[in-house]
Amino acid sequence: MNQATTASGSTAANESGLGYAVRQRIRSGGWTGHTSGLAERQVQGNVVILPEKQANDFLRFCQRNPKPCPVLAVSEPGSFGLPTLGKDIDIRTDVPTYRIWREGELVEEVHDIRALWQPDWVTFILGCSFSFEQALMDDGISLRHVQQGRNVAMFKTDVMTEPAGDFHGPLVVTMRPMTAADAIRAVQITSRFPNVHGAPVHLGDPRLIGIHDLSRPDYGDPVEVLPHEIPVFWACGVTPQAAILQAKPPICITHSPGCMLVTDLLNHHLSTF
Amino acid sequence: MNQATTASGSTAANESGLGYAVRQRIRSGGWTGHTSGLAERQVQGNVVILPEKQANDFLRFCQRNPKPCPVLAVSEPGSFGLPTLGKDIDIRTDVPTYRIWREGELVEEVHDIRALWQPDWVTFILGCSFSFEQALMDDGISLRHVQQGRNVAMFKTDVMTEPAGDFHGPLVVTMRPMTAADAIRAVQITSRFPNVHGAPVHLGDPRLIGIHDLSRPDYGDPVEVLPHEIPVFWACGVTPQAAILQAKPPICITHSPGCMLVTDLLNHHLSTF
Repeated sequence: MNQATTASGSTAANESGLGYAVRQRIRSGGWTGHTSGLAERQVQGNVVILPEKQANDFLRFCQRNPKPCPVLAVSEPGSFGLPTLGKDIDIRTDVPTYRIWREGELVEEVHDIRALWQPDWVTFILGCSFSFEQALMDDGISLRHVQQGRNVAMFKTDVMTEPAGDFHGPLVVTMRPMTAADAIRAVQITSRFPNVHGAPVHLGDPRLIGIHDLSRPDYGDPVEVLPHEIPVFWACGVTPQAAILQAKPPICITHSPGCMLVTDLLNHHLSTF
Repeated sequence: MNQATTASGSTAANESGLGYAVRQRIRSGGWTGHTSGLAERQVQGNVVILPEKQANDFLRFCQRNPKPCPVLAVSEPGSFGLPTLGKDIDIRTDVPTYRIWREGELVEEVHDIRALWQPDWVTFILGCSFSFEQALMDDGISLRHVQQGRNVAMFKTDVMTEPAGDFHGPLVVTMRPMTAADAIRAVQITSRFPNVHGAPVHLGDPRLIGIHDLSRPDYGDPVEVLPHEIPVFWACGVTPQAAILQAKPPICITHSPGCMLVTDLLNHHLSTF
């Protein structure tokens, strides 16, 4: 086995080599799809790129709403490197598929944004639930949407985010059904990961946060809740995307859903204890 | 204000003096009632005293059932001191009211057991939910039974403990109603306190652990669960008492309910992080 692909948690240097290798493959055009499963122990991040003016508002929005918008890194304006997240990252080429939004409307999907890049653009990398899902599964907790090969179920709530500038909108949550014992354990595990949404925001009766039909998610795929289970809700990275649509910035670049930035950080290293 | 009664968490030496002062008052016959509120920041412990033969079985029972039976200290056989828990403790005199059990039957309540003491007796001090309740209230979580001046509601479950020797029986749980947000926070807080029952064992549907009527607790007082709340269940120190009744040791001494041993330890210092 190549050292760069070892799964041992103690070989951080080798594992960061895996993140680099994945990014090089993406940069060369060799991978344009989902990154789920590509480097399971590496932190993967949501990508938001905004002009500096809107970026300043958006950073305040994230600061006021840390559970749905956990900021892993913010670039210097115009810089396409993210040195705290990985070796030689070029955010213009290292994401498999990008979405281009103009005035809040999706206009195009592309695999490279070098031709579009502007000197005032600021990149945000936000934590993603892939990191804590891996920690839950490592602990033996089954995630039904993963077992069934589906996207996680996501719902708009009637809980409002704290606005900043033009950014505002509802809190969006993911839902994972589990037994009470697993839910209690999942609170413990995800509490260690404040940078990737942290502890759940709700569990039990979905109507208390404005969700009236668990079988009809607003995003993603429906997932059944069995009679002996309770639904457990986490803040979701779709929340900032929804706020961006509301703010209608002149331009915004995001990753295409599931096509994340693969970093050199290990999920384990995001754990606060 | 006398230094010994300051509530500041930073004055451990003074606060341990408060535990000593309370025990001296109890020892002199100046207090025979409940210890709730007597020294809120000090760890209070459940008391079980058994002859050495049954004590050996009981210690194995506790080891196999750490959530309901968290052992804070075990004495040397015949010794009535507990030096790891406090200065100059004499377990024969320092508990306000004792219960004497013979062959599993309650025969008497007394305030001093010096005349009964035998050279093979072993004392167990088990953690008590007073410690984590204080941590929950310090965090701003309301506990309805405390607000209403009632005893906590306790229920036998259909979950069986792991037996040891003659000790066996059902897991007994306490129930505290709270909002989902408070339940999530309560999992975080009580997870830090494995020596005083730790994280909940269940939340949500009580039928899943064999409880069919929340308005009729097996011990303690009923506490209402409001429509926007969920019941949260913790392992309870009544579990070992129920197991002792089943084991019918020739003699067993316990504290009378609510009349605990006040130690010199601070609740804060039981937190594992």
